[in-house]
Amino acid sequence: MVNLTAPLRIGYVLYPAFQALDVFGPLDVLNLVSMTHNMTLSLVSNNMEPVSAGRTVIDGVPGGMMADSSSPNFTQFVVPTHTFETAPAFDAIIVPGGPGTRNINDTQPVVDWLSGRFDDPELEYMMTVCTGASLLARTGKIAGRNATTNKAAFNWVKSVEHADEVNWIAKARWVVDGNVWTSSGVSAGTDMALGWIEHLYGRNESERIRILMEWVALNQTDDPFAALYGLA
Amino acid sequence: MVNLTAPLRIGYVLYPAFQALDVFGPLDVLNLVSMTHNMTLSLVSNNMEPVSAGRTVIDGVPGGMMADSSSPNFTQFVVPTHTFETAPAFDAIIVPGGPGTRNINDTQPVVDWLSGRFDDPELEYMMTVCTGASLLARTGKIAGRNATTNKAAFNWVKSVEHADEVNWIAKARWVVDGNVWTSSGVSAGTDMALGWIEHLYGRNESERIRILMEWVALNQTDDPFAALYGLA
Repeated sequence: MVNLTAPLRIGYVLYPAFQALDVFGPLDVLNLVSMTHNMTLSLVSNNMEPVSAGRTVIDGVPGGMMADSSSPNFTQFVVPTHTFETAPAFDAIIVPGGPGTRNINDTQPVVDWLSGRFDDPELEYMMTVCTGASLLARTGKIAGRNATTNKAAFNWVKSVEHADEVNWIAKARWVVDGNVWTSSGVSAGTDMALGWIEHLYGRNESERIRILMEWVALNQTDDPFAALYGLA
Repeated sequence: MVNLTAPLRIGYVLYPAFQALDVFGPLDVLNLVSMTHNMTLSLVSNNMEPVSAGRTVIDGVPGGMMADSSSPNFTQFVVPTHTFETAPAFDAIIVPGGPGTRNINDTQPVVDWLSGRFDDPELEYMMTVCTGASLLARTGKIAGRNATTNKAAFNWVKSVEHADEVNWIAKARWVVDGNVWTSSGVSAGTDMALGWIEHLYGRNESERIRILMEWVALNQTDDPFAALYGLA
């Protein structure tokens, strides 16, 4: 069990064309919690270049929406704090999803890093949001575990290497199996983050944060989206 | 009425210690819409330095959660595409809220820019999320208009300069008054963005996006949070 008197050390993984809300929904929860509970956050990427939150990968260039032609930039670049090599030890690692997960070659460094960290005895929680589950599944480390993922991309995630070894739960807002927490698509990551705060600090704290965010939460087993995608 | 055959030109305002979900919730909606509808996005700030999504302003230094001491960085910096001086014409401007709005002096350039843009005949929509409404109210341009804002900060927003000239609606997920769209706190901005997409492109499109995001939406007049804060 994580030591709640020490700072909770959180590492959030970034890679090109991550889904912005997969990162910033849970981080809004954690930012608000960090006002009353001691925690550190690191944004970890393959290198220190700003990382695109993104719509898609265009001609091999990951980017958000194209800015007006008066700017050379794609939009929505986020600055990491550490590389995979320089990242410190973490109590919890959170892996977002997004269109960038479809790029199997470019995300291999993420998979390799997660694979090593999965066996770190200091790590108490390995969490994924949305198609971030595909990156964790590819490590082969969650063979035999229950997990869930984005409903629109459910069958794609089930097709990645080692995914056939995972027990995928279609109807779930999020799934907990030991130290592995996996959420359904996009917005579900924020519900999972609130559920994690309830687990760590109690329901009064998670409800305080939810109400500050004016967030409408679903419970762990509430999932109206699985049926909409013909999965349940 | 905005010309739906031309690219929809969106400008999103950034300033230190903006609330991340106020930006990236609506942007997740817009990113998904941009796959089927032509639009450009600019992230506009006072200068081209990365801008902190943020928890608070500590000793005058705005920042997100502090990274581990092995990094000199605060976390959650987002890279703008334009300054207030270089920003092109927009059809819609969106202003997030966040703890940074409390810094009246540092946000004056935002207020001045919004004041000038409010009178731009090319601008069709001026939108705020959360306490972003305080920045728009300070321009004095929404005197006599209906508007709403974050419920936890409702009375603070009503106290800023020119805010007493605005008709603040306590119980509303978002409010539309002519070209001015204002949402309640944090998560409400994403509901407003979905409502705006319904207004622009129809309900099939807004529902398609909502379901892709696995988002639980409230309607314009649904607001369970006003009562929780004793405002309705």
